[in-house]
Amino acid sequence: MVDSNAKGNRRERELVNLLYDNDWGVMRAPSSGSATERELPDVIAGNAEYFYVIEAKSSSGDPIYLTEEEVDALLFFAEKFGGYARVGARFDREKWTFFNPRALHRTPGDNYRVKQEDLPDGQTLEELATGPL
Amino acid sequence: MVDSNAKGNRRERELVNLLYDNDWGVMRAPSSGSATERELPDVIAGNAEYFYVIEAKSSSGDPIYLTEEEVDALLFFAEKFGGYARVGARFDREKWTFFNPRALHRTPGDNYRVKQEDLPDGQTLEELATGPL
Repeated sequence: MVDSNAKGNRRERELVNLLYDNDWGVMRAPSSGSATERELPDVIAGNAEYFYVIEAKSSSGDPIYLTEEEVDALLFFAEKFGGYARVGARFDREKWTFFNPRALHRTPGDNYRVKQEDLPDGQTLEELATGPL
Repeated sequence: MVDSNAKGNRRERELVNLLYDNDWGVMRAPSSGSATERELPDVIAGNAEYFYVIEAKSSSGDPIYLTEEEVDALLFFAEKFGGYARVGARFDREKWTFFNPRALHRTPGDNYRVKQEDLPDGQTLEELATGPL
């Protein structure tokens, strides 16, 4: 199952804490439904060398799908801001793993997909710190 | 008078909109009182070249004071994240003006002060886009 809002929210906080504990400067977007209609990434993180704008997704095991619109908005923000766009994927009993959305599998419906077996193709948090793949 | 919370909040949204309209990638911190106890800057902004972490302050005319703790937290975040720390000051009938906190006047009590007549020493938004002073 892909995570419910409550669990997704918990996972997102987990990611922010993880980045913080690893000495990143990190800001989480205000919860949606706030004043702005603008598309924001879930998290911005920087380690004084690399900047990432991250869309965070979690699942107990089923594949994670992102719509083309979600990914386009992420790429657009990353370009304006000046950081690397990443999809952060968290499957139960696995570590947070980060993917360049441009390298993700596209579905016939033009969505993006991350499967649990794709994790070896992504970057760990430690690897993000040393720069994009 | 230094602005009330409600007006300060409105001014902060004004700053975010201004940055957005000038093509910056910009994220406003979640409102305080949220899950985290961490000190966050009010705003992070990037234009794909320069990154700023901003503490936003507004006043109808009276001097703006920042505590040493506020400024220390801003500088600490800026260093970890990898951006320039700036105090954004907005006086009524004036434009947003940005100051390197290290260049601000220190009070005898070790606080920081921005007076309306200091505005010429700061940077406009247009100037921020071309890099720090």
